[in-house]
Amino acid sequence: MRGKSINELGIGQRAEFSKTISESDIYSYAGITGDFNPVHVNQVYAENTIFKSRIAHGLLSVGLISAVAANVLPGPGTIYLKQELSFIAPVYIGDTVTACVEVINIDITKNRVLLKTTCKNQKNKILIEGQALVSPPKELDSDPG
Amino acid sequence: MRGKSINELGIGQRAEFSKTISESDIYSYAGITGDFNPVHVNQVYAENTIFKSRIAHGLLSVGLISAVAANVLPGPGTIYLKQELSFIAPVYIGDTVTACVEVINIDITKNRVLLKTTCKNQKNKILIEGQALVSPPKELDSDPG
Amino acid sequence: MRGKSINELGIGQRAEFSKTISESDIYSYAGITGDFNPVHVNQVYAENTIFKSRIAHGLLSVGLISAVAANVLPGPGTIYLKQELSFIAPVYIGDTVTACVEVINIDITKNRVLLKTTCKNQKNKILIEGQALVSPPKELDSDPG
Amino acid sequence: MRGKSINELGIGQRAEFSKTISESDIYSYAGITGDFNPVHVNQVYAENTIFKSRIAHGLLSVGLISAVAANVLPGPGTIYLKQELSFIAPVYIGDTVTACVEVINIDITKNRVLLKTTCKNQKNKILIEGQALVSPPKELDSDPG
Repeated sequence: MRGKSINELGIGQRAEFSKTISESDIYSYAGITGDFNPVHVNQVYAENTIFKSRIAHGLLSVGLISAVAANVLPGPGTIYLKQELSFIAPVYIGDTVTACVEVINIDITKNRVLLKTTCKNQKNKILIEGQALVSPPKELDSDPG
Repeated sequence: MRGKSINELGIGQRAEFSKTISESDIYSYAGITGDFNPVHVNQVYAENTIFKSRIAHGLLSVGLISAVAANVLPGPGTIYLKQELSFIAPVYIGDTVTACVEVINIDITKNRVLLKTTCKNQKNKILIEGQALVSPPKELDSDPG
Repeated sequence: MRGKSINELGIGQRAEFSKTISESDIYSYAGITGDFNPVHVNQVYAENTIFKSRIAHGLLSVGLISAVAANVLPGPGTIYLKQELSFIAPVYIGDTVTACVEVINIDITKNRVLLKTTCKNQKNKILIEGQALVSPPKELDSDPG
Repeated sequence: MRGKSINELGIGQRAEFSKTISESDIYSYAGITGDFNPVHVNQVYAENTIFKSRIAHGLLSVGLISAVAANVLPGPGTIYLKQELSFIAPVYIGDTVTACVEVINIDITKNRVLLKTTCKNQKNKILIEGQALVSPPKELDSDPG
């Protein structure tokens, strides 16, 4: 249950996680955060917007990014320091979102890793782009001396 | 059900939303996003980290920021374009998080508003800092010509 | 899966259903209804009210009343027509609420039954009082002639 | 985070909140309250009723009424005292419910406000009618004498 330490990481390493976003995901997410923006939970309203139907909260898909970072790359023990995000296209109910993280810079001295973070849908359309700065888990101290 | 248009916004306007983060929030959020980082859902693991107990997902609190933007300032109809985030301190089960947005720049030509976005806990400690770029709702077109 | 028809009901019949109200019940209920009244989801705020701590939504406990009516008395097939409610005392996280329905009037011609509806806590304190008017399920037509 | 006090309220003031009721809302509500009336959670059963399909719990839509009262009018700090309800028409999965509260009487001496409470669907059909008696938040006491 420990992810990769900084010495196990290399530029270009990638990992991803995909999930079909359900209506219940959107509704539960609204319920946790209090974000009842009608474009998410009011079909009549949403039909009269440029989106034409209810869409998922952008940050819900960002949660899949942190899931990949926390579960896989670097994995358990990772501390999330910064995240920059551009929301490019909407996620509709039933869309399958793939969140991808890719190592693009490594600072061994500070134990920090820069990740390119991207979400795409089932048509390979980019939904969200950005970068995350994370601190990967440290190796267990093997030198008690 | 329409938020403030760009002409109704002014630099320095602020709005906030507060919620006590429950264990059930964290578990539901994990279930939606798939982020089962043990520091969030494994108490035994968490006790052996620098956090000493389970903490909430950083992005869960960010959801309160988008809730304020979507519900209050600018309000319904707001489109979320960009978000920059620095995660500064953790949120523990039972902490009361206040998310605050404040208008810091307005670009009338592009219909874009820059918000300072901050989350604090019940001790007024800053948890998350950042900026969001949003597009406030447009006024209804009253000139059919 | 059919409840009692009007001919199977008698004045004085009672049924009840009890549940300990958890923090997750309150948070999920807020998430479904959008009722983020801070007295329900903000511990800091709630401590400064006459309630001194977060309380459950009053209507959450009313849901236990409709559960008894729908599950037991009269049971499946019951149609809920009217409900009058007085909210007398608050429900705190961890309180065990017992919802009771009691038949107090029967109108065979209109197929309507008046129920006294009460919620009490574990100290037998009355929390909610009221009356419900319901239409019990009809007997299956046994005379095809 | 304080709603309108009695002196800020006037007869005829209105507020509303709308939400498309999802299958997940109904199932989560059933899970919280224990109301597993088959007309809500059993499609086979529901198809053989006068409703022809699963319908939402009537009290779920009433929750939107308390959300408007708690969030907007009178707003945070409001105490819910009484509610009378008539359930007139069912809510189907996917219906968009608009809950409206309107001030119809004000008792300044007792600090009580009577609200007309109505839920309609996307076709403007009345689903639920009733009245709520609430106690709006008090102004902060500015006279220590």
